[in-house]
Amino acid sequence: MSMDRLMENIMQKQNPTVAGLDPKLDYIPGYVKAQCFEKYGKNLQGAAESLLAFNKALIDSLWDIVPAVKPQAAYYEMYGWPGMKAFAETIDYAKSKGLFVITDGKRNDIGATMQAYAAAHLGATDVEGESFQAFGADALTVNGYLGTDCIDPLLAVCGAKDKGIFVLVKTSNPSAGEFQDQMMHAMYEPLYRAMGNMCQQWGLKLPGKYGYSGVGAVVGATYPKQLKELRAALPNTFFLVPGFGAQGGAADDVALGFDKHGLGAIVNSSRAIMCAWQKENCDPQDFAGAARREALRMRDQLMAKIGGISLPV
Amino acid sequence: MSMDRLMENIMQKQNPTVAGLDPKLDYIPGYVKAQCFEKYGKNLQGAAESLLAFNKALIDSLWDIVPAVKPQAAYYEMYGWPGMKAFAETIDYAKSKGLFVITDGKRNDIGATMQAYAAAHLGATDVEGESFQAFGADALTVNGYLGTDCIDPLLAVCGAKDKGIFVLVKTSNPSAGEFQDQMMHAMYEPLYRAMGNMCQQWGLKLPGKYGYSGVGAVVGATYPKQLKELRAALPNTFFLVPGFGAQGGAADDVALGFDKHGLGAIVNSSRAIMCAWQKENCDPQDFAGAARREALRMRDQLMAKIGGISLPV
Repeated sequence: MSMDRLMENIMQKQNPTVAGLDPKLDYIPGYVKAQCFEKYGKNLQGAAESLLAFNKALIDSLWDIVPAVKPQAAYYEMYGWPGMKAFAETIDYAKSKGLFVITDGKRNDIGATMQAYAAAHLGATDVEGESFQAFGADALTVNGYLGTDCIDPLLAVCGAKDKGIFVLVKTSNPSAGEFQDQMMHAMYEPLYRAMGNMCQQWGLKLPGKYGYSGVGAVVGATYPKQLKELRAALPNTFFLVPGFGAQGGAADDVALGFDKHGLGAIVNSSRAIMCAWQKENCDPQDFAGAARREALRMRDQLMAKIGGISLPV
Repeated sequence: MSMDRLMENIMQKQNPTVAGLDPKLDYIPGYVKAQCFEKYGKNLQGAAESLLAFNKALIDSLWDIVPAVKPQAAYYEMYGWPGMKAFAETIDYAKSKGLFVITDGKRNDIGATMQAYAAAHLGATDVEGESFQAFGADALTVNGYLGTDCIDPLLAVCGAKDKGIFVLVKTSNPSAGEFQDQMMHAMYEPLYRAMGNMCQQWGLKLPGKYGYSGVGAVVGATYPKQLKELRAALPNTFFLVPGFGAQGGAADDVALGFDKHGLGAIVNSSRAIMCAWQKENCDPQDFAGAARREALRMRDQLMAKIGGISLPV
């Protein structure tokens, strides 16, 4: 089961970090961009090829120390179809290095359309009886506002293709509470908790061998109280934790998302890793090395709080 | 303002219908696919070119009788980057015919990432000081579960670029009520109503000259009671109404979404128009003609309920 594969990666590397691949042109050293613009033009294609070159170098520098990467679809869509080509090639390259790939797309729609998203991002696309992979990640982030029939088509694909989903439960942004913290009248619990409970329930269809199902939840590091509450309330739901670092979540906060085995969560870092060369003010040619040094710092910081990571027998 | 442009289109054509462009290969006559597969191969590219050829013929057949089209991103994403190229070219072609284009993407993310989605689908992408358009629709459907800071970046782009958004309020699918109908404890109103109220509030930043703001709402035809309630409660929020026809919404139901001027809503039809040639069992070469006949039937059906459409002075 896909979440099992993620946990095996985490255990092997003793690192519960996912490196976000949300590249902006500003993050990419000038010499990388100059090469791509010269070859492909100073346009969407040149920009997309810059993202890809940057990502590949980061992946080369990170694959043996991080278990997973999380490309954020928006930062590729903004470069049009060349951006989506770079997105697909980034995913393929990360997978070729054994990384678990979580596409951060927060997709959501009614049943029939969700099938199309499931095919696009997790499954395969049929063209007259032949099967092609569009973007082929290992897991996809999903918004559950539409309810069960928006999730069911994903569960079917996840079951058949060994894939997983992460449902937005408590997001990391400042306005997250406007809806998510509203108390539900009938249940005397907030909406985020109702969403979390549904993750447990949806996950019954995708059980895993380490106690966590194929239906994960996105729970922000910026709300540590809720992270702790949800860790206790949702014992079979693996967490994707954004908001560490730049958004304000500290290592003490994210530690609340882990279980006694050091499992149960993976913490995202995007900008801190991608822009480490700018923060370090090192030789731009060493941007990938700086990313690796930051990833190691983050791993050590988290592991100091969590202790070891082991798979339950 | 973008919603004003939509209403002017609706008024001019006396038709509150948006034609959904959610093409599946099954919907496309064999001779169209055969031509594309021969030229581009029986692969994602050949499939994507089939979608584009199908869409262009539909647009040629519909542009003078419908005010708007709504391409659904999922059905293009599933064909990978060639699908996204067909998506961009479909949008460009529809705009070249004067159609208002609503991209149905249900995008959502935290602030910085929402900026990237806003650039991708409504605004422009900067590459070293030059501006490029990635997908460039007139409006985008959006999921508001993350709250105001997920919407604000869109409002900024909408204001600057004359674009609009439609926020999911009450969706058309069977499970819609699982979260959306939950009563909120503090407000004694369901979540969908809280989301609707926020649409009114977000819309204050994008006022229009006909009484409707640049922040619309998606309200399904399959829940007529709520559609009526929301029409009364949200006087400045324009509705995108899915669920008519195949999903079960009737003309009497959708009529509840309109105001006394015959404005306030646009009703989506996807499959019924795209697959009209299959239902009619006509010559496949006449697929675009069948789409036009269905669009005219739908227009007449709706207009019989609504009466005329006029712009308030």
